[in-house]
Amino acid sequence: MLVENINLDFIRQAASAIEEIACRTPLKKSINLSQRLQKNVYLKMETMQDTGAFKLRGAANVIMHLSEKEKASGVVTASTGNHGRAVAYVANALGIKAIVCMSSLVPVNKIAAIEQLGAQVVIYGDNQDLATEKALQIAQQQQMRFISPFDDPYVIAGQGTIALEILQQRPEIDTIITQLSGGGLASGIAIAAKALRPDIKIIGVSVDHGAAMYESIKAGKIVNVLEQASIADALPGPIPADNRYTFDICRRLIDDIVLVSEQQIKDAMCYSLKQEKLVLEGAGAATIAMLLQRSPVKIGDNIAVICSGDNVDMKQLLNICDSL
Amino acid sequence: MLVENINLDFIRQAASAIEEIACRTPLKKSINLSQRLQKNVYLKMETMQDTGAFKLRGAANVIMHLSEKEKASGVVTASTGNHGRAVAYVANALGIKAIVCMSSLVPVNKIAAIEQLGAQVVIYGDNQDLATEKALQIAQQQQMRFISPFDDPYVIAGQGTIALEILQQRPEIDTIITQLSGGGLASGIAIAAKALRPDIKIIGVSVDHGAAMYESIKAGKIVNVLEQASIADALPGPIPADNRYTFDICRRLIDDIVLVSEQQIKDAMCYSLKQEKLVLEGAGAATIAMLLQRSPVKIGDNIAVICSGDNVDMKQLLNICDSL
Repeated sequence: MLVENINLDFIRQAASAIEEIACRTPLKKSINLSQRLQKNVYLKMETMQDTGAFKLRGAANVIMHLSEKEKASGVVTASTGNHGRAVAYVANALGIKAIVCMSSLVPVNKIAAIEQLGAQVVIYGDNQDLATEKALQIAQQQQMRFISPFDDPYVIAGQGTIALEILQQRPEIDTIITQLSGGGLASGIAIAAKALRPDIKIIGVSVDHGAAMYESIKAGKIVNVLEQASIADALPGPIPADNRYTFDICRRLIDDIVLVSEQQIKDAMCYSLKQEKLVLEGAGAATIAMLLQRSPVKIGDNIAVICSGDNVDMKQLLNICDSL
Repeated sequence: MLVENINLDFIRQAASAIEEIACRTPLKKSINLSQRLQKNVYLKMETMQDTGAFKLRGAANVIMHLSEKEKASGVVTASTGNHGRAVAYVANALGIKAIVCMSSLVPVNKIAAIEQLGAQVVIYGDNQDLATEKALQIAQQQQMRFISPFDDPYVIAGQGTIALEILQQRPEIDTIITQLSGGGLASGIAIAAKALRPDIKIIGVSVDHGAAMYESIKAGKIVNVLEQASIADALPGPIPADNRYTFDICRRLIDDIVLVSEQQIKDAMCYSLKQEKLVLEGAGAATIAMLLQRSPVKIGDNIAVICSGDNVDMKQLLNICDSL
């Protein structure tokens, strides 16, 4: 598919396709953040999806668009996180076979979580790149649809439905703050939001180390970054060199990228729990971290902030917040 | 108003009236509870209302139906909790004066929370009954609309919009589990749900001490109960003898009442935080406590559980869950 075809119409089709599976999430006013910033701050509550993260939208859009033949063969992916959970959950709900490939280093509880959702887990290699290769190989050998976590028109369009909802719920929104990793979420949001409101500002938030999209946009081409551990484990990580869509879209449509530190993310996780009464994983709270740090990047008066997901170990979260 | 006039049409009118203020909340599948119970369990996420609890619906419905003269005079209530917050928030959003009466024993942080939402706080007497008397007196003297926390047709209808949404979102729901205190929420839900689906089962959940509605229904008349402290501080408490609506409605339409203990509620609060990643106050988690205790009361296969609200002190919640 040409990148031009990932447009507002295509995203509107996604919204129709996924409406039985993905929830129209609340755009909840944060009374506290609104008072702190003296602006209207609304939280787009993607943790309310059944699997706790926005990834359900993209996975649902891919699977709802499968042909009958593709449905019979099933889907395959290679994610231990929210994308893998979403693919497993949607496939299971629709009675479609799903394989999720993982490296041998993935802890058993993550394997169990995916299996509990009804998918078959294939363990291969000792890193996630090898697991992805395995998934692509299975896709080819078994004629199964491979679902990329971000560089797929249907995934991008599924995530873009968030922006349609935001501007239906609050047409006055002038700024959207979104997580930026591989760029599936940010691309979809930017396409839909700018088609509906060309002057809207889209701000992407990444971690301040291993921010592949940020480094790539700065360099004008996809560059390799060293993947480092982060409390926001869904955010860092490389963008494959054969990226077809998200780099191009993010480069054109993201207005600003703000980097946040590990400590800022941890502070935002604690803030979210204490003040907003929300359990957010690191990546989920990164957007709130950007708002709390009062970055010099200019924001408007009516701000939507993506809050997703909630897949954090509570012991870890409480350890972080032990000064509560 | 006659109790018969609090009907499906009246609740549908409430849904239209409040749609700009109260959110259509998600009905989120609980993957964990569904697997535990081998049933489909859905959480009606009322914590997603701006003020964190369903009370926003009833308050909004009253205020949206005020005449111009009533709007000019303002509203008055006597609640330190979610109802008070809701009245303050809605009135402020619509530019209407609100007075919230509280006893002198109310801690300063609760007073500040209501003032932060834009309402005027009047401190009177050393118990909540005296504060309520003061509110009624102010209502009469200043021609302000008194908003009862539960025994008001517009409040009941506002809360009843929850059931309209549940049966739109999942027409197969055959059981609704709701908190039962003064009966505003349970009455509204029962009227709407039974009008749409006469065979639906409505289960009310109260604490096992000071459950005024339970004791009153058992006695066939409103009886006084001793109000005792509870972790679910929104649940116990007397029903005034001049109750006009909720006792009659609950007696006719609630199919079963289940009582839960303090420990069961605390366990449910921890379960919700750890497994569902939800911050719930005691009353908010009481419905989940009922499901976890595997009460002998018969439930259907497709269950909606009201989750509301999130106004709990995090230190208290974490102390309860310190065995996490």
